[in-house]
Amino acid sequence: MKMSQLLGLRFKETPADCQIASQILMLRGGYIKGVGNGIYSLFTPTKRITSKIEAILRDEMDRLGGQEVMFPVAMPADLWKESGRWDSVGSELLRFKDRGGNDMVLGMTHEEAAVHLARNVAQSYSDYPFMIYQIQTKFRDEPRARGGLIRVREFTMKDAYSFHTTQEDLEVFYKKCYEAYNRIFARCGVPEVFAVQSDSGMMGGKIADEFMLPTEIGEDTLVVCDECDFRSNMEVAPCIVENEAREDAELTMVPTPDSKTIEEICALLNVTEKDTCKAVLYRKDTDDGLVVVFLRGDLEVNEVKLRNFLKSEVHPEVADENSPSDVAYGFIGPLGFNAKATVIFDRSLAHAHNLVCGANKVGFHYTGMTPERDLPTDTVYIDVAKTYQGAICPKCGKKSIRTTRGIEVGNIFQLGTKYTESMGMRYSDKNGVMQTPIMGCYGIGVGRLAASVCEARRDDYGPIWPISIAPWQVHICALRSDNEQVSKEANRIYDELQAKEVEVLFDDRPVSAGFMFSDADLLGCPVRITVSPKTCGRGVAEVSLRDKSFKQDMALDTVVDTVKTMVDEMLAKFSHEAVMK
Amino acid sequence: MKMSQLLGLRFKETPADCQIASQILMLRGGYIKGVGNGIYSLFTPTKRITSKIEAILRDEMDRLGGQEVMFPVAMPADLWKESGRWDSVGSELLRFKDRGGNDMVLGMTHEEAAVHLARNVAQSYSDYPFMIYQIQTKFRDEPRARGGLIRVREFTMKDAYSFHTTQEDLEVFYKKCYEAYNRIFARCGVPEVFAVQSDSGMMGGKIADEFMLPTEIGEDTLVVCDECDFRSNMEVAPCIVENEAREDAELTMVPTPDSKTIEEICALLNVTEKDTCKAVLYRKDTDDGLVVVFLRGDLEVNEVKLRNFLKSEVHPEVADENSPSDVAYGFIGPLGFNAKATVIFDRSLAHAHNLVCGANKVGFHYTGMTPERDLPTDTVYIDVAKTYQGAICPKCGKKSIRTTRGIEVGNIFQLGTKYTESMGMRYSDKNGVMQTPIMGCYGIGVGRLAASVCEARRDDYGPIWPISIAPWQVHICALRSDNEQVSKEANRIYDELQAKEVEVLFDDRPVSAGFMFSDADLLGCPVRITVSPKTCGRGVAEVSLRDKSFKQDMALDTVVDTVKTMVDEMLAKFSHEAVMK
Repeated sequence: MKMSQLLGLRFKETPADCQIASQILMLRGGYIKGVGNGIYSLFTPTKRITSKIEAILRDEMDRLGGQEVMFPVAMPADLWKESGRWDSVGSELLRFKDRGGNDMVLGMTHEEAAVHLARNVAQSYSDYPFMIYQIQTKFRDEPRARGGLIRVREFTMKDAYSFHTTQEDLEVFYKKCYEAYNRIFARCGVPEVFAVQSDSGMMGGKIADEFMLPTEIGEDTLVVCDECDFRSNMEVAPCIVENEAREDAELTMVPTPDSKTIEEICALLNVTEKDTCKAVLYRKDTDDGLVVVFLRGDLEVNEVKLRNFLKSEVHPEVADENSPSDVAYGFIGPLGFNAKATVIFDRSLAHAHNLVCGANKVGFHYTGMTPERDLPTDTVYIDVAKTYQGAICPKCGKKSIRTTRGIEVGNIFQLGTKYTESMGMRYSDKNGVMQTPIMGCYGIGVGRLAASVCEARRDDYGPIWPISIAPWQVHICALRSDNEQVSKEANRIYDELQAKEVEVLFDDRPVSAGFMFSDADLLGCPVRITVSPKTCGRGVAEVSLRDKSFKQDMALDTVVDTVKTMVDEMLAKFSHEAVMK
Repeated sequence: MKMSQLLGLRFKETPADCQIASQILMLRGGYIKGVGNGIYSLFTPTKRITSKIEAILRDEMDRLGGQEVMFPVAMPADLWKESGRWDSVGSELLRFKDRGGNDMVLGMTHEEAAVHLARNVAQSYSDYPFMIYQIQTKFRDEPRARGGLIRVREFTMKDAYSFHTTQEDLEVFYKKCYEAYNRIFARCGVPEVFAVQSDSGMMGGKIADEFMLPTEIGEDTLVVCDECDFRSNMEVAPCIVENEAREDAELTMVPTPDSKTIEEICALLNVTEKDTCKAVLYRKDTDDGLVVVFLRGDLEVNEVKLRNFLKSEVHPEVADENSPSDVAYGFIGPLGFNAKATVIFDRSLAHAHNLVCGANKVGFHYTGMTPERDLPTDTVYIDVAKTYQGAICPKCGKKSIRTTRGIEVGNIFQLGTKYTESMGMRYSDKNGVMQTPIMGCYGIGVGRLAASVCEARRDDYGPIWPISIAPWQVHICALRSDNEQVSKEANRIYDELQAKEVEVLFDDRPVSAGFMFSDADLLGCPVRITVSPKTCGRGVAEVSLRDKSFKQDMALDTVVDTVKTMVDEMLAKFSHEAVMK
C-alpha cells in the first residue's frame, strides 16, 4: 500500500476529551473515527490489525476443535425471554421493535443463540462435547463509553460456547481454553496479560476468570499476591484481616453528641479506624428493603459480594425525611438495633475486640464492644468487605496482597445449566435418560484487545505494534521520492518485498523527513526501511526497528533478503508453536 | 474436520413452507437455522462458504485499490438526517432509540458512514480517487423475507464506496468495478450472472447496474435481447411497440352500456386489445392526487417508470364513494377528460390509429380514435409501459426482446453528489477552489450469493458447490470405519491430504453407505474419496466428483498425490488470472 493512497490523516495535537494514551494515538494516527457515543468507524490500519487478531483467534479456537458459526446481531426477544435475560438484564441490553411491532434485541452476548442453534441437533450424548464460536458485531448500550476502543457500545467479539455432558468434561475444556487464551494474548504481543478470578455477573454460573492487561488506566481493581499465584478481581476477592490481640474492656455507653462519622469518633475517643465497628446502609433494588452492613471501621463494603449474597442489586441508603424513625443515623451499632432491616455482619468483626460502635441512640456510642462476647452466639459473619493492599492472601496466608489496575481483555465462564435448563436443551445419555448439558462460554473483544495492545506497546511518538498484529510489517520511507535513484530503489524494494509476501506500507509522498518519520511512528510498523539520496549515495538503505532497539545500514542489493529474513524471524516468535514453549 | 464432530443434522424430508430449492437443501443439509423472520444462524458449512466468498471479494476489491475499513452497524440518526434518508426511506430502515433516548438506525447501506469517514480526511484533489469497502452485517426490515438466505432481514454485505473528482474518473472506475464483479461471480462458480440496467431507487444517482443470476425463482423480471447485448431490469426497460399501419376511421361515439373492462369492450366491438386505448388510475403517495395513464390496451403500466416520472410513489386508485363524481369509471378516455388529475399519455399511443377508448360518459365509448389526429397537437407521449416478450429492442431495433427472471446478486450505482453534497463533503481542487466529490457505490450480499450458487449448482440430492467456495474440497467416506484397514487407510488419507493443505471433511461415523452418501450429497463437496473393505481389498480408493462427471479407482499409495493435483487444477480455474482470460 502506498501512503499517497491511504485514507486517513495523522496529526500532532492531542484531541479534546482524551485521557487515555491509546485513544489519543489511535485518533492522532488515523486509526479510528468516532461516529457517535461509543461507536466508531475503523480506518484501514485498524481493520488490518483487527483482521490479524481475528486470524489468531480463529487459529487457537480451531485448534481446540472449535467450529466457526454465525449468529444474528438482531434477535427476536423470545429467545431472551426463554432464558430470563429479557427481564434480568438492564438497559445495557438494547431492545427495540421491528416494523411488525415484534420485540427484538441487539445481541450483547449469544448464549441464547448458541443454545437455539444447538438444541435440536445435539440430542445424543455422542454429539458431545463440542464448541461453537463466532466473530461478530455486538452492541451493549454502555452508560459510560470511554477511552476510544477500550469501552465502546458497538464492538466485534469472538464469543465461543462449549457444551458438555459432565462438569468434569467442562472443567477439562475450560482449562484448555484458559491456556489457549494465554497463548492468544502472547501471540498478540501482550504476554503480561494474566487471569483473575471474577464475578460471573449477569452471565450466570459460578466459576469465571477474567484476563487482565495490567495498566494504570484499567477500570478494574485487581488483587494479586506477591508470594503465590493468587489473582482475583477485587469484585470477588475474599477479604481476610488480622485483628490485633488485645484485652477486652467493659461495654460502656459514652456521650458523643457531635460525632457521627468514623473520623469524628476516632478523633473524639482517640482510637484508630481499626478499633471501630461501623454501619453502612443500603437499600435493595428488588424490594427497597433496608440493609445494614456492620464491618470494621477501616474497611469498605464490597458491593459485588454484598449483591451476590443478597441476590439483589443495592443502592446506598440516604437518610432523609422518608427514613425510618427508629434508625439513629450516625449512631447505628450492632447492639440493640431493632429497626426492620437485613443485618449483615462482616467477618472482619468475628474475632475483633474492644471496639467503638454506635449505641442506636442519638448522641451515644459504646466503647469496649467485643462481638464474640456481646453479640448473640448464633451470629453469622460473612465476607462482604473489600480487601486491600497488605491484607492476608486467601491462598498462601501471607500478608502479601497487592492491588493494581487492569483492563479486561477476555473472560471465560463456567455457565453450568443456566441457559440449557431454561431453554429446554436436552440430550439422551448412554442409558437413554434425558439430561441437561452443561455450558461454558469464552469471550474476547477484538477492538478492545487492539487498543489494549496499543496502550501497552507504545512510546511518546506512537504505537509499537507487535509484528503479529501490525497493520503492515515493513514501512518504507522514501525521502525525496522526486530523486530518481531514491524512487527507483524504493520502488524496487517495495515490489520485491511484496513479491516475497511481506506486507509493506510505502511512503512515496513528497513530504519532509520529519513529517514522514512522525507519520511512520504513528503507524507503528515494526520494521522501517529509509531510502534517501544520502543512503543511496552510500549504496545502502537504513533499516531500523520501531522500538528503537536496532538501526543499521544494509547494502541495497541485499536489503530485501535480509529484511525478509528479519520479518520471518520476528513473526515466528508469535506463532502457536513458539508460545507453547 | 470429522463428521462425528460436525454440529448439524441432515434429513430427507422437505421442510414446511419452503418452495425454493436452495432453501430446502440448505435446511436439509444442516447449513442454516431460522432464528426469526428473515434472520438466520449459520452452521459451520455455511460459515466456511461465506468466508471463501468474502476472501474472493477482498481479493478483487484490493486489486481495484480498495481499502478495507469498518463502519458501525448501529448509527446515530443524525447522519441519516444529514443525507435526508431518515425521512425518505420507509420502514425497511430500522429506527430505534438508545438508552439515552437518541434516535439511531441499523445500517442498511453505508453511504452516510462512508462520507462521514472520508469527508474530513480527503480534502485535497490529490487524495482522489479512492475506494473504501467493508464486509459487515446489515439489517433491512423487509416486509417479505423469503427463500432462506435469498431475501433476509439481517445479512452480511460487501459494500464499497468510491470517491472521484470528475464524472469521467467515476466512469472509468465504474467500468473496472463492473469487470471485477463479473470476475467475482465467475470465481464463485456462477459465470452466467449478467448485468442489467436498473433503477437506482432510494440510492439516488442515475446510472445503475444490477448483476442477475438467471433463474425461474428470481424476484426480478429481466429484459434481454437475443440479437444484441441489451440487458435491463424490467423496472427501467424502455417499451418500444410497433403500431400496425391501418386506415383511420371516423371518430364515433357508440353505446356500450355493460362493457367497462377492456375484455368486455373487445368482445362487444370485436376488436383486439391492441386496438384499444385504456386508462389506468393511480393516486400519488405524496399528495393523494389522481393520476390517469392512457396506454394501448394490451400493455401494462410500469409503475417504477411512472414513479420516477412523477417523483412520487403511487398506489392504485379504487373507485368508491369518495371518488370524484366527474370521473366516469369504466368509460374514461383521452377525449374530453376534464377531471382534476395528472394525465399521462404513454408513447404506445403516439402513432396508433383507429382505437377504441372510453367517452368519459357512462355507457359510451368512442371508436375510430387516432391520437395524432384527435388529441391536441402539443400532447406529450412518455414511456411508462412495461415492455414484453417480442417487443422492439431499444438498442438494435429488432423485435427480439425476451423476458426472463433472475435473482439480484450484486449492484453498482453511479451516485453522483447526492450524499457528498447533502453531507457537506468538499475538497480543494488544483486551483484551490472547493468542489464536491462524486461517488459510486458497489454492493454484493454474501449470504444471498451463497444461496444463489446453491440454487444454480445442484441436483436432486444436494448442492454441487464449486470448489472455490465449497465448505471442504474433499469428502472422505469411510464405509465400515470399524474395519481396521478401512480406518487405517481413511485416516492416513485424511492426515496426508490435510498436511498438503487440502481441506477435508472425513465421515468417520459408523453409519450405512446409503446414509453416508446421502449426507455427502447434501454437503456437496466437489471431490469424494470412498474407502471400504471392498476397495481396500483391491488396493484402491474410489475417487468421484460430486457433479457425477468422474468416477475412478485410484491406487491407495497414489490417491493422495492424485487428489491433491486434481484439487489444485480445479481451484486454478477459479483464480483471478483464470477468469481474466
